[in-house]
Amino acid sequence: MPSEFDLIARFFTKPTPMTSLGIGDDCALLTPRTGMQLVISTDMLVSGIHFFPDTDPKQLGHKALAVNLSDLASMGATPLAFTMAISLPSADVAWLKPFSEGIFELAQKYHCELIGGDTTRGPLNICITVIGEVPPHEAMQRDHAMIGDDIWVSGSLGSARAALEFLRGKASIDPTVSGYAINRLQMPEPRVELGLAIRPYAHAAIDLSDGLKGDLTHILNRSDVGATLYVDELPMGDALKSQRIQFQRMCMLGGGDDYELCFTAPVTNQRMIENAAKKAGVPVTLIGRIEAEKGLRLVDASGQQLTFSGSSYDHFSSP
Amino acid sequence: MPSEFDLIARFFTKPTPMTSLGIGDDCALLTPRTGMQLVISTDMLVSGIHFFPDTDPKQLGHKALAVNLSDLASMGATPLAFTMAISLPSADVAWLKPFSEGIFELAQKYHCELIGGDTTRGPLNICITVIGEVPPHEAMQRDHAMIGDDIWVSGSLGSARAALEFLRGKASIDPTVSGYAINRLQMPEPRVELGLAIRPYAHAAIDLSDGLKGDLTHILNRSDVGATLYVDELPMGDALKSQRIQFQRMCMLGGGDDYELCFTAPVTNQRMIENAAKKAGVPVTLIGRIEAEKGLRLVDASGQQLTFSGSSYDHFSSP
Repeated sequence: MPSEFDLIARFFTKPTPMTSLGIGDDCALLTPRTGMQLVISTDMLVSGIHFFPDTDPKQLGHKALAVNLSDLASMGATPLAFTMAISLPSADVAWLKPFSEGIFELAQKYHCELIGGDTTRGPLNICITVIGEVPPHEAMQRDHAMIGDDIWVSGSLGSARAALEFLRGKASIDPTVSGYAINRLQMPEPRVELGLAIRPYAHAAIDLSDGLKGDLTHILNRSDVGATLYVDELPMGDALKSQRIQFQRMCMLGGGDDYELCFTAPVTNQRMIENAAKKAGVPVTLIGRIEAEKGLRLVDASGQQLTFSGSSYDHFSSP
Repeated sequence: MPSEFDLIARFFTKPTPMTSLGIGDDCALLTPRTGMQLVISTDMLVSGIHFFPDTDPKQLGHKALAVNLSDLASMGATPLAFTMAISLPSADVAWLKPFSEGIFELAQKYHCELIGGDTTRGPLNICITVIGEVPPHEAMQRDHAMIGDDIWVSGSLGSARAALEFLRGKASIDPTVSGYAINRLQMPEPRVELGLAIRPYAHAAIDLSDGLKGDLTHILNRSDVGATLYVDELPMGDALKSQRIQFQRMCMLGGGDDYELCFTAPVTNQRMIENAAKKAGVPVTLIGRIEAEKGLRLVDASGQQLTFSGSSYDHFSSP
């Protein structure tokens, strides 16, 4: 069986031209650009909780890094580097090879270097810490929403949740779009370019990992404001179009794993936001307004207020 | 059951006066001091692999951070901040409270702030990423050993391994020192001050997590040199003093979890190294010499060359 050091050398050691010292020492050395702030986030993915144990390893590698890059995107940060710790039941080369390919293909796309890590035996668990940079005072933070701001969301919502229900055998999806939906669930594309493009014009932002309703509520709570959401304006994922309206709304409001950006911006910046989104190649949709009155109000196209009991995904809340 | 967000708020949110933006957003923001290099390391601790499942949670909290700070110490870096991702079978308050106390007591000692993390359900697994700083070109690296350098080690060796064998029921330890030995195993003290104190005078360094022989070999391989180690000069942990010589040597050369620093320095710096160690309050012992001839030679007090088959701990090598 290959050793820990063999594994690291074989699958996880790539040149790190932008890093002062990469894998192979106790620590990595990174030389920040003068005047930049560092942006840091950690996510842990556990087999059976965040992904099916038989998930394609290449897709899993992609997703493990993508969810972290998505956090950088939500701050408007440029990715620089990441560390990865992984525990594995066995040193399975047939699994590690595609897993590392999935990671590195995405890492190279965003010029994000693997600078350190840890491999150990144990139940499958992947922990990635990403490091990015942003000019001081320019990061989009959850506590930056202002009363009167537009609320925007990128791309489309709900396909990942629809795919999850489909894979669990609890929903059927039109075969012409099921592949797309499963791809949204398993190969999410972090909205890095969009985050960078809108940063000069937006106030607050968050990436949608746990569901729009709950994730937007984090912005509202941290910014001490409320909002109205125009539910019939939400950009619906293709996989939802032939579904019942309750399922559509559940997937768009409560479904996690979309990894779109939800952000707020002054009304006067609408044109700039639209141009920035065009430049980044990602559609954006105006879906609500930040208001002084606390709480999140869901309103349909007729102006009727809706109740939605589904909440965001919480790993420890009782079902 | 408390939610993920309750847990984070209750146990893991502390003021972060030195950090631009701490826990509560998608990412943390850190403003590096101008001109400093960042030093980054990740370690993952898995229940049943790195610690007994019934390990005291306060000690486990301490150790999880200590092993990471030890990596910073080996580079001669000043700790700044850390992120922690943890997967837990259940949101057990009686476990989380002492665990967080163990983490924060050590973190405060070294002014190292918890700036972000992730909590999820799953088999117990703790992944910490530490960030420190060091002036450019001053870090002690594994590839900096020079032919003719002295080899030094801090503190004493082997107690942690003796304690492990004792807890496994495979060795007996004199009751007057068993508490000390178990403490060395479960509450290692990272040699942060020593790393900072010797940094101006040392070349290469590594922290001893997997055992002296294997860890020193990493320095030799990365520096493309060899060494002679004076086995009878090794500073023996108290728990070993009444043991058989084979067991002593196994624990000192092959036992992991010592978290001492092994470092190399020019012979002309002996006085400076001794003074720096005194200043840091940690004894250091001269245990060998870096040589041009590749490989690691173990020599006893009579000049006899020894063979030692025990190797470092490797999570994936066959037993």
